Amino acid sequence: MSVAHAGEFGLIARVTARLGTGADCLLGPGDDGAIVAAPDGRVVASTDVLVDGRHFRRDWCGAEDVGHRAAAANLADIAAMGARPTALLVGLCAPPDLDARWAEELADGLAAEAAKVGAAVVGGDMTASPVLTVAVTALGDLAGQEAVLRAGARPGDVVALAGRVGYAAAGYTVLSRGFRTPKLLVDAYRRPQVEYAAGPAAARWGATAMIDVSDGLLADLGHVARASGVGVDLRRAAFTVSVQMRDAAAALGVDPYTWILGGGDDHALAATFPAGRPLPEGWWVVGAVTDTGEVTVDGRPYSDGPAGWDHFRPGSTLGP
Amino acid sequence: MSVAHAGEFGLIARVTARLGTGADCLLGPGDDGAIVAAPDGRVVASTDVLVDGRHFRRDWCGAEDVGHRAAAANLADIAAMGARPTALLVGLCAPPDLDARWAEELADGLAAEAAKVGAAVVGGDMTASPVLTVAVTALGDLAGQEAVLRAGARPGDVVALAGRVGYAAAGYTVLSRGFRTPKLLVDAYRRPQVEYAAGPAAARWGATAMIDVSDGLLADLGHVARASGVGVDLRRAAFTVSVQMRDAAAALGVDPYTWILGGGDDHALAATFPAGRPLPEGWWVVGAVTDTGEVTVDGRPYSDGPAGWDHFRPGSTLGP
Repeated sequence: MSVAHAGEFGLIARVTARLGTGADCLLGPGDDGAIVAAPDGRVVASTDVLVDGRHFRRDWCGAEDVGHRAAAANLADIAAMGARPTALLVGLCAPPDLDARWAEELADGLAAEAAKVGAAVVGGDMTASPVLTVAVTALGDLAGQEAVLRAGARPGDVVALAGRVGYAAAGYTVLSRGFRTPKLLVDAYRRPQVEYAAGPAAARWGATAMIDVSDGLLADLGHVARASGVGVDLRRAAFTVSVQMRDAAAALGVDPYTWILGGGDDHALAATFPAGRPLPEGWWVVGAVTDTGEVTVDGRPYSDGPAGWDHFRPGSTLGP
Repeated sequence: MSVAHAGEFGLIARVTARLGTGADCLLGPGDDGAIVAAPDGRVVASTDVLVDGRHFRRDWCGAEDVGHRAAAANLADIAAMGARPTALLVGLCAPPDLDARWAEELADGLAAEAAKVGAAVVGGDMTASPVLTVAVTALGDLAGQEAVLRAGARPGDVVALAGRVGYAAAGYTVLSRGFRTPKLLVDAYRRPQVEYAAGPAAARWGATAMIDVSDGLLADLGHVARASGVGVDLRRAAFTVSVQMRDAAAALGVDPYTWILGGGDDHALAATFPAGRPLPEGWWVVGAVTDTGEVTVDGRPYSDGPAGWDHFRPGSTLGP
């Protein structure tokens, strides 16, 4: 059944029936607005839009995968502020001939990813459009902690990561060359594994700056460096190349560090911490904050491969 | 300069430079998420997406108008819960050849409409898409009041309105017939005049149910009736037809009550109140809550013209 046949209100009913709820959802879908708990007295909010053919391809990802990816991209932004995600709102623009099942499975993926952190889809909007588009807004609670911004890194801090880097980019390359394996890499692209709890943990641990790696590690650390007025030097040896990534890189003729240092979409969290202290669980040191004003690798500028995405760049057809 | 030429980060810089700030904005654009005050300990949130050619036409509305309309549609949802809007987040999907000025003027309109209620655009996302799309999420604060839902209307309550109805629909008809006047009606379509303060006032005054009129008065009161398990009877004589609307209706061969009862897009607030009490400023009685389970006009079903929009309905090309 197409979404046109289901009708706007029919489709809304089918989709909302599949959404769970969360402890912070005080009023879910069905009224003019949702009501979400904000016990801290502040709410963290972030919006990301995914466009068919640009941020996802329906032949590469099922609807449920797209739901996971869209939710993860937004929930990771909340975690990167040091907050706990509480709710998602979703705007779906669907071509009238889209199978209603696609919208239902999208809702399943969004709800399942949100449920990982105890959050829920609390509201949204549906409309027709020639281009399938998923606009997600995530809300979160700081639980009394100060937010961790991009601007607080200081020379001498360590640079640390929580979560994987390069896996989603490797999966993207695999898919773009027409392959469907290795499954580990392809799945990493389809459903990012985000270390959400590492964000609030970093805030409690005194992280000085934090960001979610969505444009690519070098590009995103560049954002931190600019906002903080510092430099960042990464140690290449800090990154282990998994067997699957090494083999895929060899087969495809790619330097795996291009994926690790330049690829986004895993939504790892990158943060800076005062040196000489233990880090919270799940964080590992990959470099140091410098006063050079540059992002370098082993002390030198890195120039192999793209360092991040510009969504309006000509030829930039699929990116984070 | 096209948005492709400005580049993603260049465009974000140009647009955010034009956004003001609000008292509730604790951290604005530029980090992974925004931080907004939620002094009540709860946050009201609502999302609406506007698609080029469906919710607006660039030959009918300037970019600043689209910004006003997109903001108003969302801010009115917050007001209709009885809350005071605090912030907007905006996802913009832009064709690469879009003039960067269009995005800047959109931001001007969004910011100006938000400023009417002391709110601000606190964050968002920009990406390329073949179809110009504006996804807006609004946040609001209940200031200790109970939210006014669609579900609380009781037989015997009065039905009241705050704001205009039919003006935007009349303006839409005028534009769709190729005219550009009367200015009052066309401007009503381009920039809705929403009585935002009437929402929280209704909550303080004990409104039993409330909704924002976006699908059309009959359709939206139908939502209230279904949610509350009641009926609604409107008095046709309660609605005055302005001279401009009467003349335009005569010239175009339209019954003006089609606009008043069936048209959305003015974002009037409709609420039910206990009978026999004075109403807050700006509210006027247009009917009564019944136990019929139907929405009627002067006791009879109304069937002249469309009673609301279904965004996936074939032939439904431009609507609220």
